[in-house]
Amino acid sequence: MANIQKVETMQASSAVFFIFGATGDLARRKLFPAIYSLYREGKLSDHFAVIGLARRQRTREEFREDVLSSIKEFCRYKPSDGNQEEWAEFARHFEYKSLDIHHVDGFRELNAFTEDVEHEFSIPGNRLFYLALAPELFGSVSSHLKEGGLLESTGWHRLVIEKPFGYDLGSAEQLNEQIREVFREEEIYRIDHYLGKEMVQNIEVIRFGNAFFEPLWNNKHISNIQITLGETVGVEERGGYYDQAGALRDMGQNHMLQMLTMIAMEPPSRLVPEDIRDEKVKVLRSLRPFASSEDVSANVVRGQYTEGDVKGVHLPGYRQEDKVDPSSNTETYFAARVFVDNFRWAGVPFYIRTGKRLPVKTTEVVVEFKSMPNNVYLGQKYKLEPNLLVIRVNPMEGIYIKINAKKPGTDSEIEPLAMDFCQSCMIGINSPEAYERLIHDAAEGDSTYFTRWDEVATAWSFVDRIAAVWQEQPESLAYYPAGSWGPSAADNLLEQDGHHWWPVNGQDEDNVIWIKNNEG
Amino acid sequence: MANIQKVETMQASSAVFFIFGATGDLARRKLFPAIYSLYREGKLSDHFAVIGLARRQRTREEFREDVLSSIKEFCRYKPSDGNQEEWAEFARHFEYKSLDIHHVDGFRELNAFTEDVEHEFSIPGNRLFYLALAPELFGSVSSHLKEGGLLESTGWHRLVIEKPFGYDLGSAEQLNEQIREVFREEEIYRIDHYLGKEMVQNIEVIRFGNAFFEPLWNNKHISNIQITLGETVGVEERGGYYDQAGALRDMGQNHMLQMLTMIAMEPPSRLVPEDIRDEKVKVLRSLRPFASSEDVSANVVRGQYTEGDVKGVHLPGYRQEDKVDPSSNTETYFAARVFVDNFRWAGVPFYIRTGKRLPVKTTEVVVEFKSMPNNVYLGQKYKLEPNLLVIRVNPMEGIYIKINAKKPGTDSEIEPLAMDFCQSCMIGINSPEAYERLIHDAAEGDSTYFTRWDEVATAWSFVDRIAAVWQEQPESLAYYPAGSWGPSAADNLLEQDGHHWWPVNGQDEDNVIWIKNNEG
Repeated sequence: MANIQKVETMQASSAVFFIFGATGDLARRKLFPAIYSLYREGKLSDHFAVIGLARRQRTREEFREDVLSSIKEFCRYKPSDGNQEEWAEFARHFEYKSLDIHHVDGFRELNAFTEDVEHEFSIPGNRLFYLALAPELFGSVSSHLKEGGLLESTGWHRLVIEKPFGYDLGSAEQLNEQIREVFREEEIYRIDHYLGKEMVQNIEVIRFGNAFFEPLWNNKHISNIQITLGETVGVEERGGYYDQAGALRDMGQNHMLQMLTMIAMEPPSRLVPEDIRDEKVKVLRSLRPFASSEDVSANVVRGQYTEGDVKGVHLPGYRQEDKVDPSSNTETYFAARVFVDNFRWAGVPFYIRTGKRLPVKTTEVVVEFKSMPNNVYLGQKYKLEPNLLVIRVNPMEGIYIKINAKKPGTDSEIEPLAMDFCQSCMIGINSPEAYERLIHDAAEGDSTYFTRWDEVATAWSFVDRIAAVWQEQPESLAYYPAGSWGPSAADNLLEQDGHHWWPVNGQDEDNVIWIKNNEG
Repeated sequence: MANIQKVETMQASSAVFFIFGATGDLARRKLFPAIYSLYREGKLSDHFAVIGLARRQRTREEFREDVLSSIKEFCRYKPSDGNQEEWAEFARHFEYKSLDIHHVDGFRELNAFTEDVEHEFSIPGNRLFYLALAPELFGSVSSHLKEGGLLESTGWHRLVIEKPFGYDLGSAEQLNEQIREVFREEEIYRIDHYLGKEMVQNIEVIRFGNAFFEPLWNNKHISNIQITLGETVGVEERGGYYDQAGALRDMGQNHMLQMLTMIAMEPPSRLVPEDIRDEKVKVLRSLRPFASSEDVSANVVRGQYTEGDVKGVHLPGYRQEDKVDPSSNTETYFAARVFVDNFRWAGVPFYIRTGKRLPVKTTEVVVEFKSMPNNVYLGQKYKLEPNLLVIRVNPMEGIYIKINAKKPGTDSEIEPLAMDFCQSCMIGINSPEAYERLIHDAAEGDSTYFTRWDEVATAWSFVDRIAAVWQEQPESLAYYPAGSWGPSAADNLLEQDGHHWWPVNGQDEDNVIWIKNNEG
């Protein structure tokens, strides 16, 4: 609900954005393009500046060239759309400083430099520090920001940090304490970029803006919920990090549990950030903890991809990947059946799964409604499929609803009918990137779609129990060929309950009549 | 639910079809084409015959030529699709007899003739009498059928009759008694062709086959229901009949109340004809009767069209139409607010309207769900439109659902999104005509979509109260120009309750994003 309750005025976006790690991949692929999009959409005031920071020596001009090339490659707006003067007007807000983050001296110089920049652009001392850095540097940078005098300006100060936020609850707490020595909780914006996605934010509108769904959103009407986050890629160049983390920590603790909270949370008392985050924490606290190692084995499946052929291309197994331990026991896939033990959701399984080298790149949430009683009426004669509400998060954005109707042109056959709204297929629709929304929200002081410390901690404590059991039971790892849908045990999880994974993107659903807007 | 519970076997469609009024308009436009379609779809056995009956002298060959030309003009299958031999094979089942229905002698001859025909086509004595005649002839024909020996064959005997079934309860009772002296209630098939329409039959599938709708189908979730049956034509050549009947009797007593019962009925105990019709009668009995003339004035609006210009064409007023009394007080439009006083529907207004010379030819049912509370959440900031389920009956067939979603590409604006399934727009979809379904059902002995006597009687007694008040209050007639949406009092009916008529076919709804299958 960004924008619904603005605490601060438009002046808020008048700030200096410090990009730590300005020569890195995140800055190049996401941050510079996001800032340019905001600029093009008029969501940045003229009173802003970006200071790129990294160890490397760059001139201001070189940096501006880097920014330009990043935007040309990755931004949804292209500088060539505008003219030369417009680009120059934008680029003059960009400065670069080489900085050794391990020494406070550079920070003192940075502070003096910043004051000049603020003077030049009439920026009232608002400072946003975006740490696109390895988490082990967060503490050190924070304290140097303070010692260097950067937090003494008259405006607000905000720290934006990226996942992974720790490796487990203990390490996350340690990280948090280091930061909290310098910043207050409300100054810390922890990015989970899934919360910046169009359709994840749309979940609240769908739930709270529609009489069709709100009354049905509980265990009386919903049979089960399936959240799939599939990747087709392997670990690519991230083998070193990934082999330490694994799918549960890399995707489960953050993105998947965050999406689950958006689906499951109670209506907050007000649509303001703290009230919403209060409700999300309540969901995480209501997750039924796995009480024993048997409990974990019965409800969680872990897998690792082996070599496989996809569309004629032979792909290596995980253990053959670069920077991966050839005897690694790290999971590249996990699926879990989790329960939210509260009045609304008691008895409704949430099936979540994520993995690398799956057949389809997709993030989608399937809400499966209870079947109509199959011993009355239509159910006696026809196999009535359950109604579905499917929220497509990525890469297609949209929702579809599957209902039953008479098969057109027949006397009385019944067929499923899927009404598919593919938002990303709409001509002229150019949804803001997640980072664009989130940087904007951070600059505006709207923390709704950032994760609060208690969310992070509660999610870690849920995940740690699973990880601990896996640690003791290396033999729990199953294997799946690259390009498959993961270990068969993940199918059994649902079959035990009389359910099955719905095909993602509605693929293979031949008997369904599709009403789409994504054709032609 | 035709076909769901078959009482009789496929042999059932082995019958002689007697078409009384075989040279008339209904036979030519609807009945012959329906029989041909059934034949082409393999829904008639080879053991069938059609005997056309009318006063006029025709040879068998002339009659077959009439049938051919009717099918070429009005049937969804064309004989030219097949070959000459196929047509000859079909046409040889058609016979014609000139008959004076006022004398029994002709019926005796007809019986002897029929026995020959049955012998020729190996038809086991099943006889279906379709009276495409003026209702005042029903009694006489029925008794002559009996006296002529036509009901003594070994198979079943069924009488199919058309509206109008009476002019009021008294005349309908009289008509019914005449028929009942010859036929049992279960042998009488009273056609209301709206019940044969694809989407009217789909109402049961939508209601009872979907967990999305079944739990919401009551006064807790539904705000109001709107049924519109709009015609663009005037009275055409039917002025003589129409001026006696008017919109209330011509459309209200039958089609509109029948559609209302399909929407409002409780789930029947079994999906068998009598159980379904029991539930429909219960709805009609639960209609809140208008207790006084003030009550009628407050809830029913009647109108008559005056001259007007439509798309540059000047159209005459009703009183200028052919065969219409120049001082006629007959209504060509009515709208009513009616209540179904039972536990499910208490407090939910059903707004029904029908008229001639309206701007659009359409039949549609709008189910408007209750608005989300407008003082919480999204409602504080946005004008949230209520969710709608719209069932399009005619001429477009389909359903659409209107929900609220984030406006694509914005941070947090909300817009209505209509997901539109236009069944009649689907390529290759060729829905059976209402008459085709109904003749088939009658031949199969499925009376689900025919109106039982108690339905007819209850509907008349509801309508008679309105007509009686109008009779006393000729000044209650309002006027509307041809091509307009009727008297403004019909809008006031809804405005009093804080509602409004939704635009039919979603027209003029500019702010709605439409997902359709009817483009290109």
